[in-house]
Amino acid sequence: MKGNAIIGQSGGPTVVINQSLVGCIEGLKNTGVGKILGAHHAVSGIIKEDFIDLGDIPQDRLDRIALTPSAAIGSSRDKPDEAYCKRIFTVFEKHDVHYFFYIGGNDSSDTCRIVNEVAKKSGYDLQSFHIPKTIDNDLMENDHTPGYPSAARFVANAFTGDNLDNKSIPGIKINIVMGRHAGFLTAASVMARQKAGDGPHLIYVPERAFDIDKFVGDVDRVYKKEGRCLIAISEGIHDANGTSIAARLAKNVEKDAHGNVQLSGTGALGDFLSAELKDKLGGKLRVRADTFGYLQRCYPGSASPVDQKEAREVGRFAAKRAVDGISEGSIAIKRKRDDPYESEYALIKLTAVAAKTRVLSDDFIGGDNDITDKFRTYLAPLIGELPVVEQF
Amino acid sequence: MKGNAIIGQSGGPTVVINQSLVGCIEGLKNTGVGKILGAHHAVSGIIKEDFIDLGDIPQDRLDRIALTPSAAIGSSRDKPDEAYCKRIFTVFEKHDVHYFFYIGGNDSSDTCRIVNEVAKKSGYDLQSFHIPKTIDNDLMENDHTPGYPSAARFVANAFTGDNLDNKSIPGIKINIVMGRHAGFLTAASVMARQKAGDGPHLIYVPERAFDIDKFVGDVDRVYKKEGRCLIAISEGIHDANGTSIAARLAKNVEKDAHGNVQLSGTGALGDFLSAELKDKLGGKLRVRADTFGYLQRCYPGSASPVDQKEAREVGRFAAKRAVDGISEGSIAIKRKRDDPYESEYALIKLTAVAAKTRVLSDDFIGGDNDITDKFRTYLAPLIGELPVVEQF
Repeated sequence: MKGNAIIGQSGGPTVVINQSLVGCIEGLKNTGVGKILGAHHAVSGIIKEDFIDLGDIPQDRLDRIALTPSAAIGSSRDKPDEAYCKRIFTVFEKHDVHYFFYIGGNDSSDTCRIVNEVAKKSGYDLQSFHIPKTIDNDLMENDHTPGYPSAARFVANAFTGDNLDNKSIPGIKINIVMGRHAGFLTAASVMARQKAGDGPHLIYVPERAFDIDKFVGDVDRVYKKEGRCLIAISEGIHDANGTSIAARLAKNVEKDAHGNVQLSGTGALGDFLSAELKDKLGGKLRVRADTFGYLQRCYPGSASPVDQKEAREVGRFAAKRAVDGISEGSIAIKRKRDDPYESEYALIKLTAVAAKTRVLSDDFIGGDNDITDKFRTYLAPLIGELPVVEQF
Repeated sequence: MKGNAIIGQSGGPTVVINQSLVGCIEGLKNTGVGKILGAHHAVSGIIKEDFIDLGDIPQDRLDRIALTPSAAIGSSRDKPDEAYCKRIFTVFEKHDVHYFFYIGGNDSSDTCRIVNEVAKKSGYDLQSFHIPKTIDNDLMENDHTPGYPSAARFVANAFTGDNLDNKSIPGIKINIVMGRHAGFLTAASVMARQKAGDGPHLIYVPERAFDIDKFVGDVDRVYKKEGRCLIAISEGIHDANGTSIAARLAKNVEKDAHGNVQLSGTGALGDFLSAELKDKLGGKLRVRADTFGYLQRCYPGSASPVDQKEAREVGRFAAKRAVDGISEGSIAIKRKRDDPYESEYALIKLTAVAAKTRVLSDDFIGGDNDITDKFRTYLAPLIGELPVVEQF
């Protein structure tokens, strides 16, 4: 008897986070590990000792859970400090928990790291694994992160449809895409360009300073040439001083436990930019702004097949390394080749990803309002087939 | 030689409007009708004599066009008055056009009606057909309108995912859904309820007056019971005096050629309601608002199979009636039965749909914040299979 295992799902959900949950369960079953417990609402469930028994779920139900979007056992935005992590550790001792798997982004890997250090300091035998998940694609050491390819697929699909809509009734259209520090998701909009003249015509990512006058000039130039303009803008754009444009607008800035300013769940940024364009480019222009919002991370049916497979496998990989006796780490996806696409998994140090942020590399960004073909080559194999489009 | 045909696509596009275009082309081919011309950007293309030749497109390309979202030959928001319609008629005479097919909503059927009357007054032989299309589902005499089932499918999918997201990280979430006068699209959110406790917990449609204080009380009650609250709100909600809540907010109210106030392409309504809830329910509540926006009418892959089939067939049906020598009309979908679902098509008078609006019937609305099971029975066969969802 090796003791019990706890699995948690943390932060913003994705459409494939349950693949990783199920992969982890599959990797732990019939290995001598004791109970397999789900932390109901992540760390907050652990300190409340609120668990879901995951050990006896039939395979057909596991398969349906894997296909279900969002975090099946509940997530949390709590950001545990050392005191919180000590409470987690106390619960682990009480429930004889010796395996801890935490599925999440860079904040979650940091939680995993702290709990792990608390346990090690006490001489307690704990195996702690971070299983990667984030639509932001901003984890270090990873070619890409589970959840990103599916969210990117949603964005690519959405821009494909909206490019045709904008072509059909020409005007200026702004779409605000998720991404606080990294522009990977906004960059995915470039996949909608299939023939000359297709939008998005302008793409703004947080890796480049955003200047409102430059923006107005860019739009004016495209509109004069194309008679329309479709624009992809990351919610995280900021000025040359690093001040977020969205945060500058918010009257009552709301911050979460991680100190992050609320960017999603509001249309304020799009509406502000829309008003600026109407104001500066004059009168009768048709300007519209949509903010894609939470659908990017939860719209069912947008899952990329590669993402589904890899998300399942990183969960299994973590479980197997733990069962093999390895004591800690984070799982990373490494690309072996583009075509035919092949990837493999690696165990990396928790400290290599914890609380760090990867952003778009310079060779993925074209000037201050575009994305390169190199990025298209990077993303293409991850997102699966794009919709049938036939244009005049 | 019977003369030439012009087909136009008008108003907001849908993901199946090209099915109707292709159906109409298929119904006209090899029938003795002369040229089959597409009006590039609808009526505005007609008066510019800007046409796309649709007569010689191979079937495989037609099939791809049919699967492509949005209006392939371009749409327009122009609302022709009698003078405009006389210009259209002049172009018809010049180009020997004796068949006119206009795919659109109630404003488009009115255009069709006026052009038809101008021609008839001049003793010109014109066969004028309105082919129904609108995600609003607000055409009289129709069980439902092509475009609606697919948009409803998008909304049902979106709420299914967002219900799970909201359950995973509990809070208050508002989603604004398209629909100026009719709540059919907002009502589709009810399909996301699969088990007890599922959202949307509150559904507000324009058929009922919206009272902000009552709304705050509703949300408070649900939040206290469920620990979360998912809300579907139509962009068209208005107060007891009939004043649109969204229009009341807009500093510079923008109106289109039809006199309609801009509701879509802005997050203002959701942000306003979100701020009201934070203000009145107090401090630390997590309140978010998303406005689904144009994705409801253009997201690829959201098409319902029934909608694809019927949209194709109404186009063919119109063409065939014209070729058979019938001089005018609008096509309506009539339901024969729910299970197994079956529908048929009927020719109705242009005046029966022109410039009229159908809204949700009373038996589809539950109180002032809900939708009935009778509506679910109505919608279920139209939208196709919903996503796999397995919950704890």
